[in-house]
Amino acid sequence: MLVTSLPDIRYLSAFSGSSGVLIVTAEGQDILLTDFRYACQVREEVDPGIETEIHNESALSAARKRLARENHAKVAFESRYMTVAEWTNWKSEGGPPLEATTEWVVELRMKKSESELAALRRAAGVADRALAEVLDTIQSGVTELELASHLDRAVIEHGGERSAFETIVQFGDHSARPHARPSRRQLTRGEVVLFDFGAIVDGYASDMSRTVAFGKPDPELATVYAIVLKAQEAAMDGFHVGLAGRYAVALGRDVIEAAGYGPQFGHSLGHGIGLEVHEPPGISRRSEHRLEADTVVSVEPGIYIEGLGGVRIEDVVRVGSSAIEVLTSAPKDEFIIL
Amino acid sequence: MLVTSLPDIRYLSAFSGSSGVLIVTAEGQDILLTDFRYACQVREEVDPGIETEIHNESALSAARKRLARENHAKVAFESRYMTVAEWTNWKSEGGPPLEATTEWVVELRMKKSESELAALRRAAGVADRALAEVLDTIQSGVTELELASHLDRAVIEHGGERSAFETIVQFGDHSARPHARPSRRQLTRGEVVLFDFGAIVDGYASDMSRTVAFGKPDPELATVYAIVLKAQEAAMDGFHVGLAGRYAVALGRDVIEAAGYGPQFGHSLGHGIGLEVHEPPGISRRSEHRLEADTVVSVEPGIYIEGLGGVRIEDVVRVGSSAIEVLTSAPKDEFIIL
Repeated sequence: MLVTSLPDIRYLSAFSGSSGVLIVTAEGQDILLTDFRYACQVREEVDPGIETEIHNESALSAARKRLARENHAKVAFESRYMTVAEWTNWKSEGGPPLEATTEWVVELRMKKSESELAALRRAAGVADRALAEVLDTIQSGVTELELASHLDRAVIEHGGERSAFETIVQFGDHSARPHARPSRRQLTRGEVVLFDFGAIVDGYASDMSRTVAFGKPDPELATVYAIVLKAQEAAMDGFHVGLAGRYAVALGRDVIEAAGYGPQFGHSLGHGIGLEVHEPPGISRRSEHRLEADTVVSVEPGIYIEGLGGVRIEDVVRVGSSAIEVLTSAPKDEFIIL
Repeated sequence: MLVTSLPDIRYLSAFSGSSGVLIVTAEGQDILLTDFRYACQVREEVDPGIETEIHNESALSAARKRLARENHAKVAFESRYMTVAEWTNWKSEGGPPLEATTEWVVELRMKKSESELAALRRAAGVADRALAEVLDTIQSGVTELELASHLDRAVIEHGGERSAFETIVQFGDHSARPHARPSRRQLTRGEVVLFDFGAIVDGYASDMSRTVAFGKPDPELATVYAIVLKAQEAAMDGFHVGLAGRYAVALGRDVIEAAGYGPQFGHSLGHGIGLEVHEPPGISRRSEHRLEADTVVSVEPGIYIEGLGGVRIEDVVRVGSSAIEVLTSAPKDEFIIL
């Protein structure tokens, strides 16, 4: 099998570089192919049982030539991580026949090992401490970009390798846009502040959202906060091993719809998290996965009212065989007013 | 034509969201499809002549259904920006016949307009000023991560939207690894410091590398600095409209090989830059593009000596019909010793 997704390669070989291909053979001999830039890194990181090759051409071309020489009858590949151009080129250049698979490796990654869980817990803890530091400093006139930059710095100072994705900080009505980037907008009294960010520790990500009020918030947003919190708690209470992601989403959505805010909740309820910030199982109507023991997922209901603001609360949880472990510890039970 | 690459979509429609599909029709009516999260953003950003649709399903599924209803004989798509899984699904779900194209839009993007050049110049200027600020603060004991974090903050303070990619700061022998991430390693006297970073302004990227010495450097690295600088100057002197990227690379490589450091220069000489940090034309042996008037490229020769350190110098230049315009202004003519 040809493994071309970088998180899958890292999971199987420990190689964390940003370019490479892993060949997994039926005989159990794995081969990692990468280029010059990673020569030192390969020697330090890659599991010693794995053969490594450094090439001056693309790792995919090198893999194609090697597999063609070895005369394999067919080679499995992951159709979600190969472009049509790569696939066409493989065929026209005489690579052995390819057979599409989906999610063979990413499904192995759903159930986390003890060492993966330890990294995920540390990543959640780093984000908790970074947010606490930043909340202490919030003042009138600060910009979204300044707070985002402070969070990024705090993530590193508290032990993270870096932020897990582009940190989101949104003030007031800007928070009604679930994925807008931080701007030079200045904070004024009465606005909400929505944070969505995470930390990387040993390659593993955390992801958390908190919404706080800077001064007395709009009464509707205070109501909305309570609904979002209730939706998140309902979802976590209902999570159990074996629950399909497409049913899990209803646990949170039902609370929001019952409160009349269905149309203002437009994204999925959550997502698996690990070496990637978004990985299976999805918790959405389109999810094809089930929650398993030691699956780690985010739970992030939100309500967004255009022109007024949005509230999102997001924790990362581990699905245990008897109970849920919440990895995120930052306070959320009351709408914090700064 | 189905446009699925986000930078291509931004180029053609001004939409800067992180999920969407643009349909370009022969009749000249473009349609942008995206989801709930970008409802506000679409109204603010998208060129008014473009029809927009907000969907609850993936934009690609929505596009497939619309194009199937409209009974098109065939639909062009960009085979480098569609996965085999998406393509297979398109066919099995009854989408109209797809015809692969490569780089139709990205080739339009090679020649920059006046407003794009203005953004690229501002992005280069932001990075220049951010580096000057950080160079003033360097002290013994500072870590790579601290300097990287300072650069990221300075990029924003000097007018950038954010850093263009994960900022690289490497000390001493760590700088021999062209793509290693910043670590908690502390700076000591006699080490080089290699910076590689950029800024985004109005969506356009800059990219620059500088290598400085903290205290008296190793004599070999001082020699290497002069060779890398000479290679970069030779490349820039030789750039002209019509030069193929695969020949352009030799202009810099020849200098490095003549000095006996060929094996220590393992990456390409440069790359186009614009809405993406790496875009055509490549300046490497595998490049299939030519330099055109108002093409903007980085020029980044480097020499990496394992166990000792590396030197890379990178500027962004515009290829003009009569001369090269260097967008990066940070000093480089001498090996700066702090």
